[in-house]
Amino acid sequence: MSTPTVRIDADRLIARLTELRGVGASGGGGVTREAFGVDDVRARDLVGGWMTAAGLTVTVDAAANLVGRRAGPVDTWMVSGSHLDTVVDGGWLDGAYGVVAAVEVAAALADVSAELAQGLCVVAFANEEGARGTRGMTGSRALVGQLEAAELAALDDGDVSLGDRIAAAGGDPDDLAAAAWDLSRISALVELHIEQGPVLAASGAVLGVVDAITGRQGVDVEIRGAANHAGTTPMALRHDALAAAADFVLAFEQLPNSEDSVRVATCGHLEVRPNVRNVVPGRVVLSAEYRDEDSDRLDAAMPVIQAIADEIAARRSVELALRWGQRVEPTHADPQIVATIERVVASSGSDWMRLPSGAGHDAQILGHHVPMAMIFVPSVGGVSHSPTEDTDHGQLALGARALLDTILALDSARATDHGRTE
Amino acid sequence: MSTPTVRIDADRLIARLTELRGVGASGGGGVTREAFGVDDVRARDLVGGWMTAAGLTVTVDAAANLVGRRAGPVDTWMVSGSHLDTVVDGGWLDGAYGVVAAVEVAAALADVSAELAQGLCVVAFANEEGARGTRGMTGSRALVGQLEAAELAALDDGDVSLGDRIAAAGGDPDDLAAAAWDLSRISALVELHIEQGPVLAASGAVLGVVDAITGRQGVDVEIRGAANHAGTTPMALRHDALAAAADFVLAFEQLPNSEDSVRVATCGHLEVRPNVRNVVPGRVVLSAEYRDEDSDRLDAAMPVIQAIADEIAARRSVELALRWGQRVEPTHADPQIVATIERVVASSGSDWMRLPSGAGHDAQILGHHVPMAMIFVPSVGGVSHSPTEDTDHGQLALGARALLDTILALDSARATDHGRTE
Repeated sequence: MSTPTVRIDADRLIARLTELRGVGASGGGGVTREAFGVDDVRARDLVGGWMTAAGLTVTVDAAANLVGRRAGPVDTWMVSGSHLDTVVDGGWLDGAYGVVAAVEVAAALADVSAELAQGLCVVAFANEEGARGTRGMTGSRALVGQLEAAELAALDDGDVSLGDRIAAAGGDPDDLAAAAWDLSRISALVELHIEQGPVLAASGAVLGVVDAITGRQGVDVEIRGAANHAGTTPMALRHDALAAAADFVLAFEQLPNSEDSVRVATCGHLEVRPNVRNVVPGRVVLSAEYRDEDSDRLDAAMPVIQAIADEIAARRSVELALRWGQRVEPTHADPQIVATIERVVASSGSDWMRLPSGAGHDAQILGHHVPMAMIFVPSVGGVSHSPTEDTDHGQLALGARALLDTILALDSARATDHGRTE
Repeated sequence: MSTPTVRIDADRLIARLTELRGVGASGGGGVTREAFGVDDVRARDLVGGWMTAAGLTVTVDAAANLVGRRAGPVDTWMVSGSHLDTVVDGGWLDGAYGVVAAVEVAAALADVSAELAQGLCVVAFANEEGARGTRGMTGSRALVGQLEAAELAALDDGDVSLGDRIAAAGGDPDDLAAAAWDLSRISALVELHIEQGPVLAASGAVLGVVDAITGRQGVDVEIRGAANHAGTTPMALRHDALAAAADFVLAFEQLPNSEDSVRVATCGHLEVRPNVRNVVPGRVVLSAEYRDEDSDRLDAAMPVIQAIADEIAARRSVELALRWGQRVEPTHADPQIVATIERVVASSGSDWMRLPSGAGHDAQILGHHVPMAMIFVPSVGGVSHSPTEDTDHGQLALGARALLDTILALDSARATDHGRTE
């Protein structure tokens, strides 16, 4: 196996990311590429061209994943990629960075006609973000055979079915089984991504090695008190749904402060009825979630939250009903890939740290089935899903180099193994 | 002065209230008569007919107040009435009861050709509730000369000016000064009303003598934190606007628990941005109010609330800006009228109590200028502004009798005074 020196072209990487930022530009630096929409398809066409130029064989699979492959003599595959779709008025790097950097790895290999022992597969997963009220991570779930017919038939916020959206973007919703991969042939999935949080920036590290992707438990709360006149109802005779909700919000916020409890807990959504100044609120609905890398801790928090709700309901004489929402199990990275990435980033001389991912990623779906790890670069101010989302260009190049070196190291180890076992 | 026995006709009272309930019936027992709208005008026409039948001379004044008068030999006036307009899907008694009962007093007098020393003026005040986002108490404010040109010109939520609404209901917005009364000629204003709260029902009293009408101070709160990813933002790095709002709601709720503080405090309105489950709330606006019968206590609460806001802002590193909203000064009832009502209800043998009014009323506007008091009957369950608003029919008759006897007693005292001073 010849191993010429392979180099990331940082200028090409940044130029391509900048060009991609213009596809679906929503003003003020933001980007809107809702999955399967016109700008999402334009972005895939653009990136598909770069894949072809990098010597990859490009296909759009039945789930509308954009896939570029180069086979190797050994019939196992290293996969890298992320997603090109964005939230409405999102940032230029969330997802796009991981796809363009993976294409850059392929391009860098092609630049010097480098050969690998294994195949390399670069993917732009379809609908990671969950456009128009859909569940999201559509493409990666199709790859592991988890996309159900009912989900394809359901109408989204635009009154179009997911199946019709997939067909419009070049997929084949009637033959989704064809999208599922032979997962036994995948030796590694490495997703490069911006952190979307403040941990790296606060620590001063420029590279993050992700050892786990957070799990998540949603919970919906409905509080029924009694709407009453704000002037005529004595305090002692009130059943104020908003005051009860305030109790819940503050108790929920304290969850992570208990020993061995969950990492973060958030009440993000709250609505009041009738929601006028001079009426004691009669009803509140709120939506909350909490996250941790340990599934047992996600479970252990449930009776604690139920006890909080019961205590408030009893004390305030209101009804407080919990409904447990979506559960996403934590995913742990493959220790060998993590160790490989750590060797690579340590030898690069950059400051780095291990951290869990607090956000969900396609790697989370695939990581339950194949060896997976992620590499993070810092997000300026921890900001993401915002037009101001940004990362230092030098750090973007460092991340792409770490991805390239990881792919080379993983391939080299596999080649050694393969040679040894043959 | 001949004084035949004057009797309330309870059947006529209930039959008229029931007929009025059908004007603007909104289903489920509720009533919608937005001020100056078609059903409000229909209700005024109906009640105007009953006024005429009771021997009153009926006019619609420049502010669209419906006024029925019978003069007496002494040129002073006793005024009684309330309003016929309702909130959207309100109850059948709020306002309507006080108007129909005052008409019943006039009818009872006419039934036996009873004469009074003073004039009697029965009024249905225009737009008490503040239809379509307007300020409310339009008619009573016009009577005391407090309706400004700017308010007449402003467009309501239906994009029509208050002036045009008044004109459409038979008023003359260009000559509003003509609506103002010679307040020196008014010897008493007595407004009969349902309590709209649970105090009488909880105490077992069937009649309430109102010695003061609550004052009110509004306050708007805007909280600016930082919207952030609910998974990637560590708890220690958050500036959660909703958690800060929860702190404020609970501290505000505790205001009445301090010694010598206000009677009630309510946060009725709260909105969250961006208001999605998986984003730490970046911004909250909320609207609150507190009430008391003592203006000094309304003032004294302001620095306490500012201190609450400052403490939360500092502790959570969020911006928390207060804007002081509408102030309505408390109004105290006339001690002599209160004493007269108390003698009347005590001699009726009914259980009664003194209480403040926690709601605002037209009597509050007029009470700053003329001797005023109110009589309350219980509200079932304390409910008002609701289709389920109700009062026992026997109690409705008791209230009307108390109003009649109060009018007779006030007139008799005046006749005695007048005879003495002549």
